[in-house]
Amino acid sequence: MNISDVTQLVKDKLELLENELKRNLDSDVQMVNEVAYYVFESGGKRLRPVFMFLSSGLGGYSGERDVVLSGVVEYIHTATLLHDDVIDGAKFRRGRPSANQIYGNDITVLCGDFLYSRAFVNLVKDGDPKVQMILANAAKTMSEGEVFQLVKTANFDLTFEEYEKIIYSKTAVLFSACCEIGAMLAGFDEDKIKAMAEFGKIVGLSFQMSDDILDYLGDPVKTGKKPGTDLKEGKMTLPMLLLKDLVEKNELEKMKEIISSEPSEDEINYIINLMKKYDIKTKAENFVDNYTLKAKNTLSNLPQNRYRDALEFLAEYVILREK
Amino acid sequence: MNISDVTQLVKDKLELLENELKRNLDSDVQMVNEVAYYVFESGGKRLRPVFMFLSSGLGGYSGERDVVLSGVVEYIHTATLLHDDVIDGAKFRRGRPSANQIYGNDITVLCGDFLYSRAFVNLVKDGDPKVQMILANAAKTMSEGEVFQLVKTANFDLTFEEYEKIIYSKTAVLFSACCEIGAMLAGFDEDKIKAMAEFGKIVGLSFQMSDDILDYLGDPVKTGKKPGTDLKEGKMTLPMLLLKDLVEKNELEKMKEIISSEPSEDEINYIINLMKKYDIKTKAENFVDNYTLKAKNTLSNLPQNRYRDALEFLAEYVILREK
Repeated sequence: MNISDVTQLVKDKLELLENELKRNLDSDVQMVNEVAYYVFESGGKRLRPVFMFLSSGLGGYSGERDVVLSGVVEYIHTATLLHDDVIDGAKFRRGRPSANQIYGNDITVLCGDFLYSRAFVNLVKDGDPKVQMILANAAKTMSEGEVFQLVKTANFDLTFEEYEKIIYSKTAVLFSACCEIGAMLAGFDEDKIKAMAEFGKIVGLSFQMSDDILDYLGDPVKTGKKPGTDLKEGKMTLPMLLLKDLVEKNELEKMKEIISSEPSEDEINYIINLMKKYDIKTKAENFVDNYTLKAKNTLSNLPQNRYRDALEFLAEYVILREK
Repeated sequence: MNISDVTQLVKDKLELLENELKRNLDSDVQMVNEVAYYVFESGGKRLRPVFMFLSSGLGGYSGERDVVLSGVVEYIHTATLLHDDVIDGAKFRRGRPSANQIYGNDITVLCGDFLYSRAFVNLVKDGDPKVQMILANAAKTMSEGEVFQLVKTANFDLTFEEYEKIIYSKTAVLFSACCEIGAMLAGFDEDKIKAMAEFGKIVGLSFQMSDDILDYLGDPVKTGKKPGTDLKEGKMTLPMLLLKDLVEKNELEKMKEIISSEPSEDEINYIINLMKKYDIKTKAENFVDNYTLKAKNTLSNLPQNRYRDALEFLAEYVILREK
C-alpha cells in the first residue's frame, strides 16, 4: 500500500468534503467568505478527514455524515490555525502568505471565530449529542493546550508529561476525535470505539513528535523551514527533552541559558550540533517508532480489510521523514 | 418600578448565575481560569441574563435551565469582548486594565476561544437543538458583523440599513436570543416566542444606538470615555448618519474628509460642534425613542405581570442617558 492507494480509497469522500467546505462559506459578509476561501484553497492535506473516512469505512459506513463532520473538524482546525498565525505573527502558511499577512490580525481573528461558530452550526444540524460533546470538548482542550504551551514558554524544566499534554491538546485530541467519530458512525461497539479513539490519539502524538523532530533536525530543503524555529519560540519539545538527559553538566547549563531568552543563530546552531553529537535524531525517531507500534496494536480487534491496511499505513506515513 | 425592583425580581437567578459562571472555570490549565476569573470578577451588568430571566419569568418558568443558558450567553459575550479588546488594542474594560493589557494578546485570544468552546460544551449538555441553533447562529452572526464593521471602516457612504446590520450583529442578535430562549423555556406558543425575539432585537438595537449617541454626545464625566472614540476608529454610527442628512454642502465635504483618515482632536471637536449646531442629540434620542415604543408594543399579547413591567422598564432603562 502507498499514499495514493489510501487517497484512492477515500477519493469520493475527499471530493464531497471540498464541496462541503466551500458550500458552507455562505456568509452575506463577502470578506468572511473571501478569507475562508483563501485558506481552504491553499489545500492542506485534509489528514484529519482522511482518518475519519478510513475509520468509518473500516466498519462499512456508507452514509455521508462523515463528510459533514470532517468538515466541522476542518473548520475547527482552520480556526485554530488562523488564531495561531495571529499569535505567532506567522508570515507564511502552506507556502503562501498567511491570512494575517494579507487581511490583517483583526479580520483573521474574527474569521477564526466565524469558522468556530460555523462549525457548531453544522454540528447542531447533524444533531448527535455524543459527537457534539466530543468535538466541543476537543475545541476546549485545544484552546487550553495553547494557553498551557504559552505559559510553559522558555521553561527548561518542562516534564515529558507536560510536553505530552501540550501535543495531545494541540494535535492528538482532534485526530482522536476523528477516529472515534468514524468508529461511531461505523456502528462499532464501545470497546472498538475506544480502541479507535486511542489509535487516533497515539497517531496524533507521533505525528506531532515527528514534526517537532523535523523542526530541529529536518532537511531545510525538504521541510521548507529554518531549523530551530521551536527553540526560537522557547518551545521545549521532544529533541530538547531527550538531549537534556544525555548532555554533560556544562552543556546542560548552556542549554538552560539558551532557552531562557530568545536564542541567536549561533546559539540555535550550538543546540543543533549538540543534538548531532548525541545522535538525537535516531533516538527520537526510535522513541516515536514505539508509539507507531503501539498505535497499530490498538487496531488488533478491528476488522481486517483495506481500510485497516490504510490506517496502519498512515500510522507509519505521518512519521515518515522523507515524503 | 425602578432598577432595584428589577434586580430584586431576578436576584436569586443572578446569584445562581455568578456561581454558574465561576463553577465552569474548571480548566486544569490555571492560567485559563485566572484570565476568565479576572474578566468575570470585574462584574458587568449581566444585562443579557436579566433579559432571559425576565422572559422566562414572564411565563412562570421555575426551572434552572435559564441559569445555565444565560451563562452560555455570558461566555459567548465575554469571548467577543476579549477578542474585540485585542483587535482594538483596548487599554481598559469596565474601569480596569483590559485582559490583553495584563495577559497579552496571545493568551487573551486563546481564552476567548476557551470561553466559546466552554459555552458550546454547556450547550451540548443542556441538549436542546432549538436553543443550540439559536446560540450557534448568534455567535456566527456576531463574528460576521464584526468583520462587516471592519470592512466598512471609514466608509462615509454607509447606509442606515448597513448600520443597522452592524448593530444587530454586534449587540441585538444576542439580546434577541436571550428573550427568545426565555420565552421558549416559559412554554409560550410560536407567536409569543417570535414577539419576544423581536422585543429583544429592538431593545438591543436601541441599546447600541444609545451607546453610539453617548460616544459623541455623552458627558465624559458620566461615561468615563473621551467623546468621539467611534469617529477616531472610523465607525459611522447613528449621530453621523443623521448629521449627514442635515449639513450644508461644505460641511458635508469636511465630514467626508475627516472620516477618511484618522481624525485629529480638532477634527473630532469640529464634528461634535456640528452635531451640537444641528441638535443631533435630541434628534437621535427621538429616533431611538421610537424603537423603544415599538419594543413595548411587541409585548402587547404577553401576560400582564411584574416581569412584563420589568421588561418594559428595561426597554426604557437601556436607553437612559443619566443612569
